[in-house]
Amino acid sequence: MDEFDIEVHADPDLEDPVLIEGLPGVGHVGKLAVEHLLEEFDGELVRRLYSEHFPPQVTVEDGRTTLACVEFYAVEVDGRDVLVLSGDHQAGDGVGHYRLTDRVLDVAGEFGVERAFALGGVPTGELIEEYAVLGAATTDDLVEELEACDVEFREDEPAGGIVGVSGLLLGLGERRGLPVGCLMGETSGYLVDPRSARAVLEVLQELLDFDVDYATLEERAEEMEEVVKKIQEMEQGPTPSDEDLRYIG
Amino acid sequence: MDEFDIEVHADPDLEDPVLIEGLPGVGHVGKLAVEHLLEEFDGELVRRLYSEHFPPQVTVEDGRTTLACVEFYAVEVDGRDVLVLSGDHQAGDGVGHYRLTDRVLDVAGEFGVERAFALGGVPTGELIEEYAVLGAATTDDLVEELEACDVEFREDEPAGGIVGVSGLLLGLGERRGLPVGCLMGETSGYLVDPRSARAVLEVLQELLDFDVDYATLEERAEEMEEVVKKIQEMEQGPTPSDEDLRYIG
Amino acid sequence: MDEFDIEVHADPDLEDPVLIEGLPGVGHVGKLAVEHLLEEFDGELVRRLYSEHFPPQVTVEDGRTTLACVEFYAVEVDGRDVLVLSGDHQAGDGVGHYRLTDRVLDVAGEFGVERAFALGGVPTGELIEEYAVLGAATTDDLVEELEACDVEFREDEPAGGIVGVSGLLLGLGERRGLPVGCLMGETSGYLVDPRSARAVLEVLQELLDFDVDYATLEERAEEMEEVVKKIQEMEQGPTPSDEDLRYIG
Amino acid sequence: MDEFDIEVHADPDLEDPVLIEGLPGVGHVGKLAVEHLLEEFDGELVRRLYSEHFPPQVTVEDGRTTLACVEFYAVEVDGRDVLVLSGDHQAGDGVGHYRLTDRVLDVAGEFGVERAFALGGVPTGELIEEYAVLGAATTDDLVEELEACDVEFREDEPAGGIVGVSGLLLGLGERRGLPVGCLMGETSGYLVDPRSARAVLEVLQELLDFDVDYATLEERAEEMEEVVKKIQEMEQGPTPSDEDLRYIG
Repeated sequence: MDEFDIEVHADPDLEDPVLIEGLPGVGHVGKLAVEHLLEEFDGELVRRLYSEHFPPQVTVEDGRTTLACVEFYAVEVDGRDVLVLSGDHQAGDGVGHYRLTDRVLDVAGEFGVERAFALGGVPTGELIEEYAVLGAATTDDLVEELEACDVEFREDEPAGGIVGVSGLLLGLGERRGLPVGCLMGETSGYLVDPRSARAVLEVLQELLDFDVDYATLEERAEEMEEVVKKIQEMEQGPTPSDEDLRYIG
Repeated sequence: MDEFDIEVHADPDLEDPVLIEGLPGVGHVGKLAVEHLLEEFDGELVRRLYSEHFPPQVTVEDGRTTLACVEFYAVEVDGRDVLVLSGDHQAGDGVGHYRLTDRVLDVAGEFGVERAFALGGVPTGELIEEYAVLGAATTDDLVEELEACDVEFREDEPAGGIVGVSGLLLGLGERRGLPVGCLMGETSGYLVDPRSARAVLEVLQELLDFDVDYATLEERAEEMEEVVKKIQEMEQGPTPSDEDLRYIG
Repeated sequence: MDEFDIEVHADPDLEDPVLIEGLPGVGHVGKLAVEHLLEEFDGELVRRLYSEHFPPQVTVEDGRTTLACVEFYAVEVDGRDVLVLSGDHQAGDGVGHYRLTDRVLDVAGEFGVERAFALGGVPTGELIEEYAVLGAATTDDLVEELEACDVEFREDEPAGGIVGVSGLLLGLGERRGLPVGCLMGETSGYLVDPRSARAVLEVLQELLDFDVDYATLEERAEEMEEVVKKIQEMEQGPTPSDEDLRYIG
Repeated sequence: MDEFDIEVHADPDLEDPVLIEGLPGVGHVGKLAVEHLLEEFDGELVRRLYSEHFPPQVTVEDGRTTLACVEFYAVEVDGRDVLVLSGDHQAGDGVGHYRLTDRVLDVAGEFGVERAFALGGVPTGELIEEYAVLGAATTDDLVEELEACDVEFREDEPAGGIVGVSGLLLGLGERRGLPVGCLMGETSGYLVDPRSARAVLEVLQELLDFDVDYATLEERAEEMEEVVKKIQEMEQGPTPSDEDLRYIG
């Protein structure tokens, strides 16, 4: 295998496609968001990208193994062409991140991508009530456009900048003249967060003008709430049941 | 030395050989299994593979040093040609794992290998009574074949996928069109586990139709049991001997 | 992107320029010092250097992202041409440090740099009263010249040598025949230290014969003093106020 | 700078020279041993080897900086030509160790080196009374020769094999057909150990038939003993002085 190996699965003509990236990261917000798009809209696998910068690993499903990779899907979202980047891995080292993102931008170039959005989460350290979405972009125009969709821009946030493939999509995309925006859903940082993914998708929906149903994402959010509740109960110890309280009452 | 250096020791003609890999890993299950095959059947060293991705290290035996390497042996197992990959090392970094496995597959190609089995252990976190063998494979045919030999396929196991050379034999092997299966003996993960190695070999025996004696492996298993017993005693403090109990009785 | 990518922003003719490096390090002494020069004198961005050896990261300011980089500015300091190297990053690995410093020296060569000074801090482990500046240089002449400006040379200091880009500017600069001096302001090592940066600049001022105002640096120093005071109070617990003491008095 | 850069300082003709390596390691045994040879016999710097695999660092002495490197000296030891490899650094990564050792063997080849000895320490975990020297070698002849000089060969020692440049001198030297022996002085592993270095030199003295004075090494050993004594006192708390004991007596 070469440093990067790109398998071509299909080569559809896409009209002014937008690239949407959602690789694993804080709260798996970006990953959940693009997985939801792939579930709700018809998509076609167009490229699979392997790299020796990914972990030396296969995943196993129903006994069958799959080598670490990321995948590009061509998805028609309410009549608009979208190129979705999805996967379970980022690069294992800094140099790998740069080179991986360069390959991603090469593929985007092949399909004539003219704008890109990197989706992710930004950790707040506490459970979230109101899911704000923070933004960043490579051009002032895009900053304004995001602001118009209620994306928040706060001074000195995110504090450590934006790292990994999302960060470099912005950094290397700008150097190629590609306008790239980043949507970061606030999330505690402790748990997989489908509700933060929904907040990010709601912004994207307005930006790209499409309609999507959130029922399955909401289900996953409720499952996570159950998990959170159980953890909180375990931390507080047993609480008296109604039975126990009757006598006192 | 180059990044990889392959010493040719012999070049026998092998008939439809199967590659069997057993490098160090969880419980040293794979390593113990292939070492047992090398002890029980006549084998010939055919290749030695050195790499700057191995630790910068020599081992010492009887005062003589050996540079870190892995070795290929041509072994005739009850009339069937087997190419065994054995050694004390895996690569020291992710990129090295990819490149090392590619070289291993190159050597396998030179000998006309048509199928491969990666042997290893899967950690359970507790001492094992019944040694199950979990499986994974690159083709549905091979999954079925393993199932027929009582190999178990469980949902979401192994949880973290399969890593290292074993994982990449599957991942990179599939990309070359080589059918590869993985046999993972359950093992506590705390100790070298000859009994798990035996469980794996018993599956292999059925798959490849050979007969092997387990006396020496059983001996090593009993030695390990002694070790476990001593550790348990140390943890529980002194227990009264029969002598001590007589009076009470 | 290549391993290193150098953007040309301007190509002014500089007369016998001196290179002054101040990348992040102990107490951010070097970085504060060169930032102060850039604030106080007119400068022009001449080169921006990107590298896959920098962290895979963009910083965000007013919603706009900037890819990790270091920058060269041509600055006229009281009639003398200075090439200032400033930025938020050093390389992420040892090999990267060597290659990054080589590129920095290439750029210095393009501008005809004939001398260089690396600015930094040396940690003392305790709060500083008198800010001494320690020195090191690639030639005896430069050692003498620094000594004449009250730079201190102490046996076995700095204990661990000089690391990172500053260290390699000296090491690789010497191999190219470029005289390089290093000015290291003493600093506790716990805090960003504008006063140590001032001490370093005062030496540089004498060496290169220029005048600079320290008002803004002094402001930052006072802000840091407030921070230190608050930390000390928190450590000591509440102290009685004057009010509380009146009765006793 | 290239990955490796070898400065030629002199090119004397050496007669059947022996390479003696003593880079930093356990107890600095090898380093102390070769430094003692360089002090006691006339030597000439012949090569200086720089590498981006060394730490990105300069050392400072009397204000003058030196880039991380290792050095080869041609030394005449009682009429016998010896090539000594000395320095303050090993490579910072595994791949670097392999490549560095290859370059060392290239230089050895240029001078016609026909045998090499790697000097080092082997940690015992406790303070040593009798300084044994353990051995390892690439040929049976050399094992015998070392045994004749009271070098000990123990089963399963050193337990983890021999790592770093010393280990690879044996491993890569053997692959080039160069006979290489390793002399490992027992040492606690906690402290710089001049007495272990002496034990190693005494074996070398017999092997290569030369005479050397140990006065300065003995001085350093006594200094270390003072350090050990002070540490032991600090651990035990104050012991009663003779004065205090008089009354009891």
